[in-house]
Amino acid sequence: MTDESSIIARLSRNIPSCLGWMDSREVPVGIGDDAAVVRPRSGGDWVFSTDAFIEGRHFLSRAHPPHAVGYKALARAVSDLAAMGAAPRYFLLTLALPAGRTGSWLERFARGMGHAARRFGMRLIGGDVSRADCVGAALTVIGEAPHKRVLARRGARPGDALYVSGRLGAAQTGLEILLRSGAAAGARAARSVVLRRQLYPEPRLALGQWLAAQRLASAAMDISDGLSTDLSRLCAAGGVGAVVHAGSLPLAGSESLRSRGARRSRHDAADLRRALHGGEDYELLFTVRPRLVTRMPREFRGVPLTRIGEIAARRALLLERGGRMQVLRSLGWDHFARR
Amino acid sequence: MTDESSIIARLSRNIPSCLGWMDSREVPVGIGDDAAVVRPRSGGDWVFSTDAFIEGRHFLSRAHPPHAVGYKALARAVSDLAAMGAAPRYFLLTLALPAGRTGSWLERFARGMGHAARRFGMRLIGGDVSRADCVGAALTVIGEAPHKRVLARRGARPGDALYVSGRLGAAQTGLEILLRSGAAAGARAARSVVLRRQLYPEPRLALGQWLAAQRLASAAMDISDGLSTDLSRLCAAGGVGAVVHAGSLPLAGSESLRSRGARRSRHDAADLRRALHGGEDYELLFTVRPRLVTRMPREFRGVPLTRIGEIAARRALLLERGGRMQVLRSLGWDHFARR
Repeated sequence: MTDESSIIARLSRNIPSCLGWMDSREVPVGIGDDAAVVRPRSGGDWVFSTDAFIEGRHFLSRAHPPHAVGYKALARAVSDLAAMGAAPRYFLLTLALPAGRTGSWLERFARGMGHAARRFGMRLIGGDVSRADCVGAALTVIGEAPHKRVLARRGARPGDALYVSGRLGAAQTGLEILLRSGAAAGARAARSVVLRRQLYPEPRLALGQWLAAQRLASAAMDISDGLSTDLSRLCAAGGVGAVVHAGSLPLAGSESLRSRGARRSRHDAADLRRALHGGEDYELLFTVRPRLVTRMPREFRGVPLTRIGEIAARRALLLERGGRMQVLRSLGWDHFARR
Repeated sequence: MTDESSIIARLSRNIPSCLGWMDSREVPVGIGDDAAVVRPRSGGDWVFSTDAFIEGRHFLSRAHPPHAVGYKALARAVSDLAAMGAAPRYFLLTLALPAGRTGSWLERFARGMGHAARRFGMRLIGGDVSRADCVGAALTVIGEAPHKRVLARRGARPGDALYVSGRLGAAQTGLEILLRSGAAAGARAARSVVLRRQLYPEPRLALGQWLAAQRLASAAMDISDGLSTDLSRLCAAGGVGAVVHAGSLPLAGSESLRSRGARRSRHDAADLRRALHGGEDYELLFTVRPRLVTRMPREFRGVPLTRIGEIAARRALLLERGGRMQVLRSLGWDHFARR
């Protein structure tokens, strides 16, 4: 029989969880009571973020296998902790499910979420399940950071160098492949970088904590809705503008496509568009004071760190391309904006 | 123009919120960054709970005015903190909305949630908005409790007295009236106790904190899905059973209905059914050791405290009615159970 308790049992069997009365110092009361109880360590700040993951909006059943849905729902919430330089600790899951998704779909979803939780070192401490017409998950993630060391969005000043981690546009390319090929393509994720970036994004946790510990970043956030949209948010928080150099952008698709000769420039334009406006890369976007730029390595634990522009006093986003300046419009993801 | 930022602005204008970089000791970073940062006070435990509130499941647009939807979404999550004896502090809101609900509906929803937040002394520290086909909210509430003083579900022992706060069945009666009369009836909430209990439930925060501080309750939880279902959970957590005396139950509807003479017994049966299986009363259900029963007052700050039965060693729920014992089936709310 499928009832709420069997759904909760299926989730907690697959996801590292704090169950019941733990009698532990850190989590005296876990899942199964009215609320969870957590005892803070001394000397740390708590960092909280919440994110929805809704069928038809954040994922498509025809394109995203349930294992990836479970993984990605947690990974994208955790990316907000990475962007603060925080270490993930616990999470709570609110899950709404159609009755037809409580069996093998839920099992695979829970395994994917468990995979993510183990990878990020997190434990489930509470949740709520209810019925709905489509799958909807809301995750609240809880992290810890040393006092006064978090990476905030505000703080960028004119003259700061603008950096991005990794390569941009891969998740968007992966989505386009999935939309063409359907969920069957998901099985190829292990062999395809772009599919892996779309289905199993990698929050930059170690990089965020390192930037915070070294006090290298004056401002930071993660790129979830696309560089053009997220950069406008980082600039708004600091009351500044920015110039991005198109030629400096670390394009995800370009390496393999540049060999295609005649179609090169068309492909480059598509790659540039994906890098500027395609979302879900979950890379870090951050600024560095000019005097600290010499301390910035070219990569951190195998992840490229690329200087892509500068912060400017004038409150505008500009794209420099072949020596010419143009306005960089925010064409990334907004759930409600009319285009 | 309605976009994500205008929706967030509408919410934070109406709900007590921690916005931006607070430079405060308690909340150094609030809404608008990737995550909120909260600095714990020393000597306290953190208490976390999460709850969904979905159109068509937890509320009906034809019956529940948007102001009540906003109030109730927060109140029912806060009831979990009351059941732990915790003091509410902060909350995070994940909100999914159809495009047609971003105007006046959202304004009234936000006012209702703001009303609840002020009443319970809470501030919004983070959230996420996205688009969906129906309204869905997920709330994570954060409270504080003194070390080792929380009220847990486990802990009931055979011989403990079983208590309930307030009167049972009012919220169910209110729902039945709303389903007959539609949302227009919601305007009468101020004059109708049962409508008020359905639309604007009152989490028993002061009672929960008092029971915890006095160490009077051996086990406690809130009644959200109906006494018969929630009592089975309290008993399962403690590995015990219980006997409930039908004649002792504080029925919400009985006083006004008893005067109706001939129809009395039929009404009494309906009231008993609502008290046993009707959900959403958000009263506290708790157990008290026999030696502490003499310390229990008949009411706490105007809220009746009624002894309705006893905890038993045998793992069964029994209802004693007119001297006869019958099995008390759990017929309260379960999102997935087949009836």
